[in-house]
Amino acid sequence: MAYDLYWISGSPHAWTAMLGLEIKGLTFRAHRLDPSKGEHKTDDFLALNPRGKVPTLKHNDTIVYESIAILAYLDAVAPTPPLFGASPQETGLVWQRTLELVNYIREPLIDNIARQLFQGKFSDTGEQLAEKAAEAEVALSWANNILSETPFLAGVNLSAADLVLTPYIQAFVRAVAMPAGEGLGATLLPLERTFPNLLHWMERIEALPAFEKTYPPHWRT
Amino acid sequence: MAYDLYWISGSPHAWTAMLGLEIKGLTFRAHRLDPSKGEHKTDDFLALNPRGKVPTLKHNDTIVYESIAILAYLDAVAPTPPLFGASPQETGLVWQRTLELVNYIREPLIDNIARQLFQGKFSDTGEQLAEKAAEAEVALSWANNILSETPFLAGVNLSAADLVLTPYIQAFVRAVAMPAGEGLGATLLPLERTFPNLLHWMERIEALPAFEKTYPPHWRT
Repeated sequence: MAYDLYWISGSPHAWTAMLGLEIKGLTFRAHRLDPSKGEHKTDDFLALNPRGKVPTLKHNDTIVYESIAILAYLDAVAPTPPLFGASPQETGLVWQRTLELVNYIREPLIDNIARQLFQGKFSDTGEQLAEKAAEAEVALSWANNILSETPFLAGVNLSAADLVLTPYIQAFVRAVAMPAGEGLGATLLPLERTFPNLLHWMERIEALPAFEKTYPPHWRT
Repeated sequence: MAYDLYWISGSPHAWTAMLGLEIKGLTFRAHRLDPSKGEHKTDDFLALNPRGKVPTLKHNDTIVYESIAILAYLDAVAPTPPLFGASPQETGLVWQRTLELVNYIREPLIDNIARQLFQGKFSDTGEQLAEKAAEAEVALSWANNILSETPFLAGVNLSAADLVLTPYIQAFVRAVAMPAGEGLGATLLPLERTFPNLLHWMERIEALPAFEKTYPPHWRT
């Protein structure tokens, strides 16, 4: 019953999948790929995932990619603790929150800000900056408002939605703390002032052993 | 056990949810909203879904939105026939395909082409046209290749992935047949010539009673 996870340090999607394995208490072999060496585009890896993307999970003869599909697969194979709810009502809410993250939160926080800052491509001109800051604020407010009512994104229990949001927030906060993110940071951070519920949620997540075990190693240095 | 579905004719996402209800054989009240009258932005509707989007499902006291979350909810509440597989392997593959559709197929077919054509905003200038055509071709090829091996997108059975792809393909083909889509149509259609497996899949879907029942009424006129 071996699990093999192919991942890249700092990939938010790979981090989500790895959190899922850890929360389930599943033992897995972690195969870290170095994108600077093109290790995610080798013939061997493309045979596992033709898109050449991480995370990719191999479990016995089954291969699954797309991070949220990996979480759904893990929930089917190892149902405890459930990542997608324990009743139809919970399942509906977890999936709704998860898809809201994919459809409305990923782009403003990750695609338009964090990834661009990490890659040194962030455009800091006035109007664009204001627009990106406004869109990020809407995204962060959405999470912060939910977390004013419940400790986790889909209720009283940790769920897949939290595992998706965790790398988004971690990457966003880290990126905006870079010198090139200063214009954003001035209005959106620190979370303690701007989005305190989100900060307290983040502290709850950071207290999980799974968080410490999966923190991107190249971020520690 | 009443289901209420709020929908807009021609919304691909609403169509997906409605197909799910029909495939499950669930009786539901369909509340068609008229976006030209702002019926999806009334206080009453925003109380159900603060995003003011369709589809939105109400089932007794449970409200679920985001089309794919609605399918997941229906699968939890009414498991037969399964939309997300009958084994962990099937579940993993259905979710992988479904998220591939969301992450790689929706944008080139719907956001960049169908929606723009329907709204009269399609930009037909040379370079952009070639780029959009190339991206659409990658998307269509992906589906066509899968469908060379299996009758449905995640294997031998109809699944959620097929219910997500159906409105994408229907909207894409309809949009590209418009006069403003001529430049795209010349290279990408007819499916019989360009992507025959996709056409045969479409014919299998169109033969389902659920398809006929959910076809956008304003497309018939």
